[in-house]
Amino acid sequence: MAFKVGLLGLGTVGTGTAQILLDPAGRHPLLKELEIHRVGVRSPDKPRAVQFPEGVLTADLEAIVSDREIEIVVELIGGLEPARSLILQAIAHGKHVVTANKAVIARHGAEIFTAANEKGVYVMLEASVGGGIPVIQPLKQSLGANRIQSVTGIVNGTTNYILTRMQREGADFGEVLADAQQLGYAEADPTADVDGLDAADKIAILASLAFGGRIDRDRVYAEGIRKVSAADISYAEKLGFTIKLLAIAKRERQNPEHSEDRLQLRVHPTLVPKTHPLASIDGVYNAIFIEGDPIGQVMFYGPGAGAGPTASAVVADLLNVAAVLKTETEPIPHPLIGCSHQHYCSIASMEEVVTRFYVRLLTEDQPGVIGQLGTCFGNHGVSLESVVQTGMRDRLAEIVLVTHDVREGNFNSALADIQTMSAISTIPSLLRVL
Amino acid sequence: MAFKVGLLGLGTVGTGTAQILLDPAGRHPLLKELEIHRVGVRSPDKPRAVQFPEGVLTADLEAIVSDREIEIVVELIGGLEPARSLILQAIAHGKHVVTANKAVIARHGAEIFTAANEKGVYVMLEASVGGGIPVIQPLKQSLGANRIQSVTGIVNGTTNYILTRMQREGADFGEVLADAQQLGYAEADPTADVDGLDAADKIAILASLAFGGRIDRDRVYAEGIRKVSAADISYAEKLGFTIKLLAIAKRERQNPEHSEDRLQLRVHPTLVPKTHPLASIDGVYNAIFIEGDPIGQVMFYGPGAGAGPTASAVVADLLNVAAVLKTETEPIPHPLIGCSHQHYCSIASMEEVVTRFYVRLLTEDQPGVIGQLGTCFGNHGVSLESVVQTGMRDRLAEIVLVTHDVREGNFNSALADIQTMSAISTIPSLLRVL
Repeated sequence: MAFKVGLLGLGTVGTGTAQILLDPAGRHPLLKELEIHRVGVRSPDKPRAVQFPEGVLTADLEAIVSDREIEIVVELIGGLEPARSLILQAIAHGKHVVTANKAVIARHGAEIFTAANEKGVYVMLEASVGGGIPVIQPLKQSLGANRIQSVTGIVNGTTNYILTRMQREGADFGEVLADAQQLGYAEADPTADVDGLDAADKIAILASLAFGGRIDRDRVYAEGIRKVSAADISYAEKLGFTIKLLAIAKRERQNPEHSEDRLQLRVHPTLVPKTHPLASIDGVYNAIFIEGDPIGQVMFYGPGAGAGPTASAVVADLLNVAAVLKTETEPIPHPLIGCSHQHYCSIASMEEVVTRFYVRLLTEDQPGVIGQLGTCFGNHGVSLESVVQTGMRDRLAEIVLVTHDVREGNFNSALADIQTMSAISTIPSLLRVL
Repeated sequence: MAFKVGLLGLGTVGTGTAQILLDPAGRHPLLKELEIHRVGVRSPDKPRAVQFPEGVLTADLEAIVSDREIEIVVELIGGLEPARSLILQAIAHGKHVVTANKAVIARHGAEIFTAANEKGVYVMLEASVGGGIPVIQPLKQSLGANRIQSVTGIVNGTTNYILTRMQREGADFGEVLADAQQLGYAEADPTADVDGLDAADKIAILASLAFGGRIDRDRVYAEGIRKVSAADISYAEKLGFTIKLLAIAKRERQNPEHSEDRLQLRVHPTLVPKTHPLASIDGVYNAIFIEGDPIGQVMFYGPGAGAGPTASAVVADLLNVAAVLKTETEPIPHPLIGCSHQHYCSIASMEEVVTRFYVRLLTEDQPGVIGQLGTCFGNHGVSLESVVQTGMRDRLAEIVLVTHDVREGNFNSALADIQTMSAISTIPSLLRVL
């Protein structure tokens, strides 16, 4: 007996998913028991890369989520609506759901999982983070013995592609973005990618799994790569760093005043030491680096997007659900597949985050400026690791400095003071260091 | 109701496993339902890093595998016997088995899984390959949508540590091995590691999962790192390669004469292009690089050994079995956890493998030698990518050459001819290129 699947959306990932399901030879044997029953698309008459029997394609998406024969609904429309409503309707009709939609899970996950738990169905989301890279299932399962300390990811292929090309070509952000748009590596409206919003959705999802609680997506700090310049990439390189857009979720040591650990949740361009495994992840590839006790450090690397890889993750979820349907006799939440978080994780404000900083300043070319900077940082408890006058730019002296670990709030007050110093012209760059 | 676990062995991994089970806070909630019922050790009275209630420690291992209350037996003794017999006895008594023992699975897997399938129990082995790195479960599950084309791993930490130090220090094998033994990174008898036997066990296991068939361990070609010299590491570096001990399992394009794909299965020191993700895996870290359709390339990276990481994998398997026990009502083989391979994979002989070669030769310093070499290789259909006379060594001219892809049989006949050439003194090195 085959498990009937309803597919919502037949774009690149939907097509990739259908191609796997229609050609199961040489893949997992359980795939032969999955059958595409109906496919919802906007224009059923449009020519398609995959052929379905008469009547499988339909424009009536609501008919799919309520179809009595369908057991699993695969949502590959993307965006918040109508994806959210269709997922909720599918759940209400007792369907299991597989989705690649990070935005809807990051923003409406609480509502969706509450509904799913009430109905005793599963919502699977391997494809929502890291394309084909298995990371959701390992976090639910293979790493279950660990207390996770941090999850650090390069989870947006577009920005990693842009930063890699900026580094290799010494080019500035604007020109590489324009070229990436032309080549199809960046969208016409690149906001979600280059401003870090997509990465923020993804780290919210990873943090929820790693730390076992719900995440308020609005509390995730997101800073994109628009301000990263060729000059900073070059200075970072000389200092032994590569600049990457990192998505970071980190458990803070428990504060005696708080009953519970707090999380840091932040997306920003970051100077990554070249010896770190994440420093060499280039182009559209993604990687997720996880630290836990007792495992230490593990990293998952692979293609972060694309039809084939993302479809691979969608079908992995389908296999998981099919295996559950085959072996369970009653729909109780499977302890390694279902989601049972009820509470929201406590999230630290950026002011409280402790990190190192890289700063580039343009100052009057007069003696004593470095001394003044050092004194002012020192007054705010910021200690400096290195200060280098790199040369002259626009008739101003250019100074690049890297701090030791400092509470971001302290650093900001130091910076506010420095901005009032008469010798300081501008502070073109301010980046965090891993 | 807790699931009762019997532990065989309380060495470093056994101790690490017990420490996780005895301290479940902040880890997967299902861990609280696992209880260490009995622990089998050679000397129950020896002082231990973990304390158990009176009567838990016993020297009677057979009493554990037949204990009526125990549902899961964890075998952490290592080696072939008595591990094999104890595993088979545990299965015969209807226990699920979790093991970190690559040797026993690689050599007696067929017998063990046949027995397990007959009894309807699971044998789990995440810890047998790659220490804490999740790779067994992803192969069974997350990558199930794919046709796997190749699995290439750095799966032995000792040899990777030795090669990394040889590279950094320009040192020769012997001195680094001696130092590694002193530091505890290599065993007093390093044979299993440095001769590639441990890696061969592991690639046999990975291949079985990746290609869905049983593997005759004796057909895995294993060549260790004893002959890798500082000179070769340095030449490889100049040519843009890093030398790694790779374990390779690769599906060969189907031959029209054969009804089934054949596998290459081989362990040998390999020149890895520096741009390849495996080239930067250093020290005791392991990584497994997998190519599949449609996912493309993914890599799993992490600590390949050690108490904490290996215990993390053992406990991940315990969680998997506990989840099955909690949700299944009858013991049918779970399609993503159980093993149902019956047939043996067909394995290509090394003569048939197509690869590139790196060769270092010492020749008389006379004109025309490179021409003679080129002609001889050409006669056997071996085309050369680069030939460099690197200088003089022991009053002989040293020549380093790299071939294009060639059938290993053809290459060997060319080499046999070359060895008869009067100008050729010796061929100190012969390595394959990824």
